[in-house]
Amino acid sequence: MNSMNLKVKPLDMETGRNIVVLHEDDVGELGHFAGDRVKLATPKAELVAIANTTRRMVGRGEIGTFIEVTEALSLKPGDAVSITFAPRPRSVDFIKKKMDGRQLADEEINSIVDDIVAGNLSSTELAAFVVSEYIRGMNLSEIVALTQRMVSSGDKLELDISPVLDVHSIGGVPGNKYALVTVPIVAAAGLVVPKTSSRAITSAAGTADVMEVLANVTLGLEEIKRIVGKVGAVLAWGGAVRLAPADDIIIGAERMLGIDPRCQLLASVMSKKLAVGASHILIDIPTGSGAKVEDLDQAHSLSHEFMELGYMLNVQVEVAITYGGQPVGHAVGPALEAKEALETLRGDGPRSLIEKATSLAGIMLELGGVASRGMGRQMASDILKSGRAYQKMREIIGAQGGNPDVKPDDLPIGDKKEILLAPYGGYVTHIDNQRINLIAHTAGAPRDKGAGIRVILKEGRKVDKDEPLLEIYAEHEAKLDKALAIAKRRSPIRVEGMLLEHLVKKGHVFKGGRETGPPGARA
Amino acid sequence: MNSMNLKVKPLDMETGRNIVVLHEDDVGELGHFAGDRVKLATPKAELVAIANTTRRMVGRGEIGTFIEVTEALSLKPGDAVSITFAPRPRSVDFIKKKMDGRQLADEEINSIVDDIVAGNLSSTELAAFVVSEYIRGMNLSEIVALTQRMVSSGDKLELDISPVLDVHSIGGVPGNKYALVTVPIVAAAGLVVPKTSSRAITSAAGTADVMEVLANVTLGLEEIKRIVGKVGAVLAWGGAVRLAPADDIIIGAERMLGIDPRCQLLASVMSKKLAVGASHILIDIPTGSGAKVEDLDQAHSLSHEFMELGYMLNVQVEVAITYGGQPVGHAVGPALEAKEALETLRGDGPRSLIEKATSLAGIMLELGGVASRGMGRQMASDILKSGRAYQKMREIIGAQGGNPDVKPDDLPIGDKKEILLAPYGGYVTHIDNQRINLIAHTAGAPRDKGAGIRVILKEGRKVDKDEPLLEIYAEHEAKLDKALAIAKRRSPIRVEGMLLEHLVKKGHVFKGGRETGPPGARA
Repeated sequence: MNSMNLKVKPLDMETGRNIVVLHEDDVGELGHFAGDRVKLATPKAELVAIANTTRRMVGRGEIGTFIEVTEALSLKPGDAVSITFAPRPRSVDFIKKKMDGRQLADEEINSIVDDIVAGNLSSTELAAFVVSEYIRGMNLSEIVALTQRMVSSGDKLELDISPVLDVHSIGGVPGNKYALVTVPIVAAAGLVVPKTSSRAITSAAGTADVMEVLANVTLGLEEIKRIVGKVGAVLAWGGAVRLAPADDIIIGAERMLGIDPRCQLLASVMSKKLAVGASHILIDIPTGSGAKVEDLDQAHSLSHEFMELGYMLNVQVEVAITYGGQPVGHAVGPALEAKEALETLRGDGPRSLIEKATSLAGIMLELGGVASRGMGRQMASDILKSGRAYQKMREIIGAQGGNPDVKPDDLPIGDKKEILLAPYGGYVTHIDNQRINLIAHTAGAPRDKGAGIRVILKEGRKVDKDEPLLEIYAEHEAKLDKALAIAKRRSPIRVEGMLLEHLVKKGHVFKGGRETGPPGARA
Repeated sequence: MNSMNLKVKPLDMETGRNIVVLHEDDVGELGHFAGDRVKLATPKAELVAIANTTRRMVGRGEIGTFIEVTEALSLKPGDAVSITFAPRPRSVDFIKKKMDGRQLADEEINSIVDDIVAGNLSSTELAAFVVSEYIRGMNLSEIVALTQRMVSSGDKLELDISPVLDVHSIGGVPGNKYALVTVPIVAAAGLVVPKTSSRAITSAAGTADVMEVLANVTLGLEEIKRIVGKVGAVLAWGGAVRLAPADDIIIGAERMLGIDPRCQLLASVMSKKLAVGASHILIDIPTGSGAKVEDLDQAHSLSHEFMELGYMLNVQVEVAITYGGQPVGHAVGPALEAKEALETLRGDGPRSLIEKATSLAGIMLELGGVASRGMGRQMASDILKSGRAYQKMREIIGAQGGNPDVKPDDLPIGDKKEILLAPYGGYVTHIDNQRINLIAHTAGAPRDKGAGIRVILKEGRKVDKDEPLLEIYAEHEAKLDKALAIAKRRSPIRVEGMLLEHLVKKGHVFKGGRETGPPGARA
């Protein structure tokens, strides 16, 4: 092979990939072009990197190295490296195969996952994989292979206990803090629940954001193991551990494109659960307008895929379809939700949260073999009422470095508050999940722990004109103002009696209500 | 909107896109994530850029700016800029629409092309577009819109003459130097031919590489206009002018993925031709084993698409299907091809090149209205024989700053040479285009102008054992050795009499010939 000796110029760039930058004329000399790979060799080590080209970032005879490459090879400015062109990874051919709509063999999927984790694929190639997954889909045997390799290419929690219970909710519903109630109930019955969860990105609060109000959630694998060994459960942030790391990289590309390929969703959820060693998994599919899954047909088909996948992966999967058409409970935002969960554990929670938390816990108790079929729900409810779930939560909080004696009123709710009033009297017919999320997010959640929303009147409740519909909390006045402005302009709560059309004069129809612009806008 | 004031830290990175780097915690503060856009504002100007995040390239309160952004806003280290988050460009929604298999409206295609040219799309988003084009395809009305916007978003050659002739060959065939003969014939008949062409990347020589042996091909739009005005034709490198710049960016992504979406191929060719103002276009589709188009059915369907597209774009398109199963003429590589073209113009060329060059020129003469239908070929042949095409080529070379008096033997053929001999006697049954390209490329072409191949015996010719099959030329001994080694291991020329199997002893079958490994390899 043609080779070339170049002088290292470290570049202050990190991308999670092995990237080097070569002068266009040097690349031309070797007869290759951008997107190709080069093998870098020093006297001590070798590495394959993606080669970008430039006419000015580096001179001829120089090689710019991104932080990942500089560190992996311990390079210093001016070091000599020898480069040869390396073939494109075979995984790119397999991505092409998926683009062409063909089924991938296990080894081909393994090769793609391994190259994603190793940072061997350019963002162009990674995007091609995700888009092909989205358009072409994968069959169950491909999803099995994908799940297994995502698990084995990351770290794993080894608990040497069975059964290991876990629960996962397919996102989209605001105020979905059930896990802070469900997990302690299940653990109070003596079952093991190593629950990892995510932080919110565009919504108001993920389970990790809520739990963080009460305790530390940034825990390493050894800490998680120690805590689970001690109190039987944990509520940790999944982002602090390297469980199925390919998934995190893939999700990054999905977000940029606003797509969520079904096969990747399935593999993603299952791989995170398998990586913590779960043997019995409950999948919660909130279903309803404004949730990720909007109707029961969709929910059923997804349920069957999860259960079939569980069967093929040799873990027991059951699915709960829950109502996801409006927020769970009343509170939305980290501190407000933590407060509501704590109140619920102490015996004073809203019905919808108690229902959801004990239903899911009940199924888990049955799954885990401590309740007979049909009896789990009652057992969960008894554990909650007895205070044993609250006691278990205190242990979990303590084990995760929080204050077990914390009271609901101690929690730092934002001290800036505005109230949205009903513009008309009538019945609450609809609460828009996405608008609730947007308003809470605008108010500062989840970054500002105290920011969020308390929904006062939920669907079906009667309301009089000027009665409060919801409260918005914030830590900063400016964010509160902005959130209120959005709430007024695009009300997240629809009242049945609301004016939908207002006819003024022939030819001009003024519209009000949900789908339209501000009053006075020309139709 | 939430905004934030940050200090500029220019980064020595260029990507052709507007990219900035923010600290993860600053991004979290604003509640957004990587792939989002930020609007940067200085007292003088504003710009939207793609926001990447980091924990170490920049500190909190800093913004790293790539070269494109630094220059567009004239930023200095430590300058203050204010940023607000900007919505994702709408073109990303339209790319999603194409992912979903839906037809795009003209304005939607315009928005995608404009954002590609402006550097507003991340490589992930661009890849999603290209992959969607590949998998979902586009109908003719979408391709029309794509072509038109690719033209209007770049520079255009304005000649104020009609007709303007042009010719384009769908690549893949080595030694395809016909344009150096065809263009002067057509121009000698008084027609205008502003021919731009590309350089080779993975093959041995593009038309621009070959012409560059004789004259300067890196010409600006004004120079091209001046030269065409003076001598009626030009043979310029398309890469030096900004014609349909979206196409060059899209082709970069296609190459990385090894795909060539049909709709993009059509739009690409037509946009480059429309950008030089061509009114009458001849498309050459070399067809045969090892060419881009391998059989006549494919060639016919592509032909009809080109003609239909031409009709909808209001230009006259005709198609020539030529034999592409082996090299055109004998020479492959810039100087060798330039020499063969010059010899042909001077009356001493190989039959296959004369046939192809005069056939295509004949059609162009008819298209341009200077020959009646059916008479073009004869007229082209007469012009070539009369020496008028050679005289025109001398004018073109002179106008492009070359030496019009250059003789074929003056051209700098590589002084290192090896000969590949026939291992057996028989008839030449196949010449492998891809292997010819690989060997010539390995010998140094197109970068080393003198490197390349002269194919001595073409398909159908009888050969004796140890008779020369081809000559390899190079400028550097090491490249020559490597090229010869490849030629011996994977012969580009198959002789009918060649041993295909050699049985030695029961159970061991030794295979020779094209599809197999080195002699002695175990079957």
